[in-house]
Amino acid sequence: MRPFSKLYMKEGDVMIGTQVAKVIQSKNSAFPVGSHVVSSCGWKTHAISDGKDLTLLMADWPKNVPMSLAVGAIGMPGLTALYGVEAVLKAQKGETLLVNAAAGAVGTVVGQIAKIHGCKVVGSAGSDAKVAYLKELGFDEAFNYKTVPSLEEALKKAAPEGYDCFFENVGGQFSTFALQQMKEFGRIAVCGGISTYHDTAYQTGPYPLTTINWKQVKIEGFMQSRWQSDHPQGLKKLMGWYKEGKLKSREHVTKGFENMPAAFMGMLQGENIGKAIVTV
Amino acid sequence: MRPFSKLYMKEGDVMIGTQVAKVIQSKNSAFPVGSHVVSSCGWKTHAISDGKDLTLLMADWPKNVPMSLAVGAIGMPGLTALYGVEAVLKAQKGETLLVNAAAGAVGTVVGQIAKIHGCKVVGSAGSDAKVAYLKELGFDEAFNYKTVPSLEEALKKAAPEGYDCFFENVGGQFSTFALQQMKEFGRIAVCGGISTYHDTAYQTGPYPLTTINWKQVKIEGFMQSRWQSDHPQGLKKLMGWYKEGKLKSREHVTKGFENMPAAFMGMLQGENIGKAIVTV
Repeated sequence: MRPFSKLYMKEGDVMIGTQVAKVIQSKNSAFPVGSHVVSSCGWKTHAISDGKDLTLLMADWPKNVPMSLAVGAIGMPGLTALYGVEAVLKAQKGETLLVNAAAGAVGTVVGQIAKIHGCKVVGSAGSDAKVAYLKELGFDEAFNYKTVPSLEEALKKAAPEGYDCFFENVGGQFSTFALQQMKEFGRIAVCGGISTYHDTAYQTGPYPLTTINWKQVKIEGFMQSRWQSDHPQGLKKLMGWYKEGKLKSREHVTKGFENMPAAFMGMLQGENIGKAIVTV
Repeated sequence: MRPFSKLYMKEGDVMIGTQVAKVIQSKNSAFPVGSHVVSSCGWKTHAISDGKDLTLLMADWPKNVPMSLAVGAIGMPGLTALYGVEAVLKAQKGETLLVNAAAGAVGTVVGQIAKIHGCKVVGSAGSDAKVAYLKELGFDEAFNYKTVPSLEEALKKAAPEGYDCFFENVGGQFSTFALQQMKEFGRIAVCGGISTYHDTAYQTGPYPLTTINWKQVKIEGFMQSRWQSDHPQGLKKLMGWYKEGKLKSREHVTKGFENMPAAFMGMLQGENIGKAIVTV
């Protein structure tokens, strides 16, 4: 949302965003009154849609599963984690996987899916409370990148064997240190770069190509939209793991439509553990 | 050879290098007297080997094909080009491929293989003579990166449609400009970084991750040794194309063992067109 809004939006535009909404009036039989939809209509309390930006909430959504998960662990962030780990990184049993921004909406799911696949999982996050939460979720190693004396040493200590997979959400300097700790034939999935979203000019660092060359590392950028047709199956998978208790989800809930800008800025500053949700 | 020697060799070590050599004495029936071998014994006029660093010259090497090609277009540089184009980039008919250091031992083969596969090929090189040679080889577009007013504009002009594939031999600033011109889902094969080999400290530039992310670009470092078991088949393929006239090779020949250091430094400074060969 942040890089998109910075690049493509101007003052007065409706801020982009995804919501779980209830249909209260309908002329479209695909979306009957009372049904719940996931909508990308942006930051609005009420919206009119021709149906193109709507998806019905997954059929048989269990009553005891919060519907807000449809924009979290069992929604786009969950799918992003799923495709990143399975389709891009192809993480295998016994491999070591690193994820940064690990306590966020995507990172928490990445780590849990990697554990389901039998990986050793290392997470980096920006507070001790987040680190504690990662341990609770079953991460093998987790550290607070803001307080470790050296990021390089922290990465080495967490996985002296090096990393096979790296799910990259942060960018900037973190990427340089992580690349140095990749094993030969390591894979990096580039999902985001939250450390760079506020920049007005590109941050610079050492060119990574020599290391990529010598270690025969593979780096791939991706967005979940690439696997659009796999979404229904992916959501079923995530829901299955959630029901089995293998995929846990915590939400950082802010109440009130008027608090959305503050919630958004707080998320970018790392205030949330898990998906940032605003209830209206 | 350059980064390896910088990292791992000390004064007095025998410089690494590959040669086509004739067996003049033998106690190993696999390498009879009079046979020709490709040897990685380094810079030596005569060497004793236990056979481990020797490969017999391809069987049925035609009399009219210079044996020196076994360390060039029908040797390691040729295989590097082949694996980079076919296994890493998976270049497809109709795609646009960019290669830099295009007039070198690897680059010339990269461009010709990409043409064989039906690609549009763009080459960057460091002299007008090299550019003329690339055109002679069938490159669709070629430019002298040292004299174009803007590398960015030269890359755009050569392929306004953008690049599907980029075979990277240079690194540094070139990589930043090339990345900006990649199409969505573009692939980059990192084979070398000749612009950085003399550096005593890492060159810096803008972090590439945001572009990699948004364009869903894939970057992979590689070395030909990864496909060791495919070498015999790969060499047959290269020899076949050579015989058909689809793969041409020019060599930059220096005479005399004592001139090897000068030839090596000249190659790093871009004096050669095609493979740098020293005859002894």
